[in-house]
This record gives sequence, structure tokens and C-alpha cells, in this order.
Amino acid sequence: MSEAATAPAARATIGDSEFDRDTALTRRAPGVYDIDLSAGWTIISAVNGGYLLAVLGRALADTLPHADPFTISAHYLTASQPGPAVVRTDTVRTGRTLSTGQASLFQYDDGGREVERIRVLASYGDLDALPGDVRTTARPPAIPPLEHCLGAEDGPAPVPGSSAITDRLMLKLDPSTLGWALGKPSGKGEMRAWFGLADGRDHDPFSLLLAVDALPPTAFELGLKGWVPTVELTVHVRCRPAPGPLRVSITTRNLAGGFLEEDAEVWDSADRLVAQSRQLARVRLG
Amino acid sequence: MSEAATAPAARATIGDSEFDRDTALTRRAPGVYDIDLSAGWTIISAVNGGYLLAVLGRALADTLPHADPFTISAHYLTASQPGPAVVRTDTVRTGRTLSTGQASLFQYDDGGREVERIRVLASYGDLDALPGDVRTTARPPAIPPLEHCLGAEDGPAPVPGSSAITDRLMLKLDPSTLGWALGKPSGKGEMRAWFGLADGRDHDPFSLLLAVDALPPTAFELGLKGWVPTVELTVHVRCRPAPGPLRVSITTRNLAGGFLEEDAEVWDSADRLVAQSRQLARVRLG
Repeated sequence: MSEAATAPAARATIGDSEFDRDTALTRRAPGVYDIDLSAGWTIISAVNGGYLLAVLGRALADTLPHADPFTISAHYLTASQPGPAVVRTDTVRTGRTLSTGQASLFQYDDGGREVERIRVLASYGDLDALPGDVRTTARPPAIPPLEHCLGAEDGPAPVPGSSAITDRLMLKLDPSTLGWALGKPSGKGEMRAWFGLADGRDHDPFSLLLAVDALPPTAFELGLKGWVPTVELTVHVRCRPAPGPLRVSITTRNLAGGFLEEDAEVWDSADRLVAQSRQLARVRLG
Repeated sequence: MSEAATAPAARATIGDSEFDRDTALTRRAPGVYDIDLSAGWTIISAVNGGYLLAVLGRALADTLPHADPFTISAHYLTASQPGPAVVRTDTVRTGRTLSTGQASLFQYDDGGREVERIRVLASYGDLDALPGDVRTTARPPAIPPLEHCLGAEDGPAPVPGSSAITDRLMLKLDPSTLGWALGKPSGKGEMRAWFGLADGRDHDPFSLLLAVDALPPTAFELGLKGWVPTVELTVHVRCRPAPGPLRVSITTRNLAGGFLEEDAEVWDSADRLVAQSRQLARVRLG
């Protein structure tokens, strides 16, 4: 195409992006929010758990007097589907620096009755009000530079079926955690990637909630196949992320009894440990 | 005293112990439980957060069709006091292998009104029904043998004031995480100990909830003084603990912005990683 014919699309911004549009809710009444869950954040047919957490997180940010999730725990009850949903929030307690709230996401069964998909408990604060004292001893993950990491577009689709979410992400995996895609899982419960949004939107606390659950499961590198559904996910948001891609490092050390934990660390371009999470997930053994 | 005058007390058992008596609730109505919170599980004047979590956990075990907490998250809203309390539980969802519930602990203000202290969201299952496949890659902590570790009784009381809880615990700390007690904090966010109940009761899933929050704060080894109140605590119970003392290892790697995380691992005498937890706590800097 000629240079003049199409101007490059303006890069998306926080507040004006796919992620913002797809996590936006309409307040129907105090504490009651409607949303049409997007089909764009699915892996195979499952709506991504981090996307859902971001939806709930935004509803709570509207309800509570504090805007930033500090610690948010979600129990995933039944599988969500693209389509209509309602989020109901309650204020548990408001304080000077922290407030706590609860939220549930429901969808509708064949008879139009509400079926609860996810319940969340969270405490919110103001990340910009935190003192600048940083004594983090954790170090960023050892991951090759972005240009040496690989995305879905760099090879054959490793997971058959639609993976709509990968179109919305800039996800470049550490080749040393990609053995599973070549039929040679490493046997180590590790997954590392550079992470961004495909339309260029910078990160904010809500895209951090997406980031911790957007990588392929560590189970793949442990030689397990199939779905690894999240039972519960808790995220600590510790800092507003700087612009630029994130580095996400996920570790599993306790695969046992049909369950595993995934510990995620999220590092921003300023080398701050901006979020930490742990989820409990079920695995199919053998 | 003469040998014949006093027979040694029978060792306590699960179901007949201080811990069981002090976490026992009386069901007033479906989903409504009364308890007198014990003064015996306090550090200085604060009722221990793990003891409180065990109280809420036992209420949910009575409410739900599954008996064992698998993943439990608590948000601590206001400080609990010894004395009367009520726990209100709700069933969120019941399934074949997992059920989810919510619980709140309230105490009473001067006017007799209920004030919420803690809210919990938890999923329960049956630990004995889990397959025996164990592929844990985590290793038990490097901690000296119990006889080389030190308890409060081995030195001067490092924390002034009443520490009633220490009378109820067998808590022997790794000397390498005791620098703070000698005015020489290591600067490393680590705390390790052997952990048991003073009356000899073996462990169960509910004493694991106590174990993850019963050690001195890692903040002490980071040179910080003062109270480190828990904002939120999530515990994964992964295995019914074998008899005998536990090894608890706590790590902090992200002290920043006036908050820190404490990651606890709990290992039983069979070298199983029986519980993992993470809490977000507030610190006073400088």
C-alpha cells in the first residue's frame, strides 16, 4: 500500500485501548455493573482469568473511595463465557489509607437466573501516596532481551484452536521456557516472558492483573497437557508500573495431589517489582 | 515434689487440646457461631492473626460440605480483642470435590453493635481424597536440628510485654534468624523455626493456619521495630500434616512503599510441603 493511503494507527493509551474498552462496565445502580464479556481475551474457549480479575477490579475501583488494588483475591467458581454479565460490589470497610470491598461476577443460565462465576475480596489504596522507600532484595528475572524472545507469531501455533487473547498481547517468551512447544518440555516449572498489550497501551494496576495470568501454564513445561483451571488467585499490586514492557516470571515448585501453585513476579522497565501473585490451580495427572 | 504426687499430664490430641478449646465455636443458628476469643494467643496485646484465621476456618468447616481448607484468604479490617465474637458464614458454591464459602468475624462496640474484624473467602475440599502423586521440586529449609534452635525460654524476653502465645507454642528459632534479639539484625528478610503446640497436640490443617503467622516478623531481621500488622493473608493447605514438629520458613523480598510481603512455607516431619502462604503487611519505616 502507498505511504499516503493509511496513516499509522495512533498508539493506544490508558483509558483508550482495547483493554479499557473490553473491561469497561456500565453502572446500572450503586454497586451494580453490567458488562458484555469480550470473546477477545479467550484462550481456546476459556475467558482468561486475569481479564476477568481486571473486570472485577475496575468495578471495585468505581465502588470504593480508593482507586488502586493493593491486594485482591479471587475464587473462580464456574467457567465464564463471552457475553452478558453483571458485577455486584459491596463496600466492606473504608479507611483513611485502605478500603476493602467484595465483588461477584454473575452470568445468566437458560432461565435468565444469575449464576455466580467469580467472587473477589480486595483491599484498595492509593499507590501514588506510598513513600518512596524501596528496599526490595528480589532481583529481576534472568530473561534474554526482548528481541531474542519468541511469540506465537514466530512459530507454528502450539496450542490448537482459537487463542484470541494472543492477538491482543505482545507476549514474547524466553526460549528456555518454550521446550513444550517443540515437544521437549524442560521438566522445570518455569515460564518467563516479556509482556505488553498489542495496541501499545502502557500498563496500569489493572493490566497487571491480566499480566499475572496471561502466560502459558508452567504445567506445559512440567510435561502436563490439558487445561489447568485456576481455583484461586491472589495478586499484590505494589507499585504503579512505569511505561514499557513488563517482565513476567512464573514458578511452580509444589505440583502434588492434583494441584499446583503458580507464583508470578511482574517487573517493570524501571526494575521495580510491581506485582506478585500466587494462584492455586488443578491439574490433570497422567 | 514426690514422684507419686502428680502424674504427668496426658499429651493433648487433635480435638482435645488448648488449641481446639480456644478455637471452638458454638453454633447459635445455621451460619452463625459464637466464640469467646482467647487472650492466650496474643502477642503483646494483639490477638494473633493465624489463631483468628483458624477460628474462621473452623466455622467454615462446619458450614461447608467439605472439611479441609484448600485455599483461604483473609482481609484484616480492624484489630480483634480477646472476648466475645460472632462468626457469620455463607455458602458460596458447593461442588463435588470443592466448595467455597465466605465468613466474617465481628465483635461488639460500646453500644453492642457488630463491628467487622476480618472477612474471609475460602475453598474447601477433602485432603484425604487427593491422589498420592507428589512432584514437589521445592526443598525443605536449611534449619539446624531442633535441639540447636532457640526459644523464648532460652534467653531474655526479646519483646517487652506479655506474649501469651509463646506459652502455648513450642517455637524454636534458627539462631541465624535471631540476630534481632541480640541487637544485631541480619538485614535479611528471613525467619525460620521449628513449630509445635506446647501441649503436644499434633498438627492438622487448622494448626497450619496458625503456623504461618506465629513466628516473629521478618521485619525484625530487616532492622525495623514495632508492629507489622497483617492487611491480607492467603494460605494454601496442600497436605494433611504428619505427626511431629513442623519447620516454618518465612521470606520477605519486597519491602517497599511502607509494605512488605511474608512468604511462608510449612514442612512436616515427612518432608512434605504441607502449606504455603503469603501475607501483605504494613511497616513503619524509619
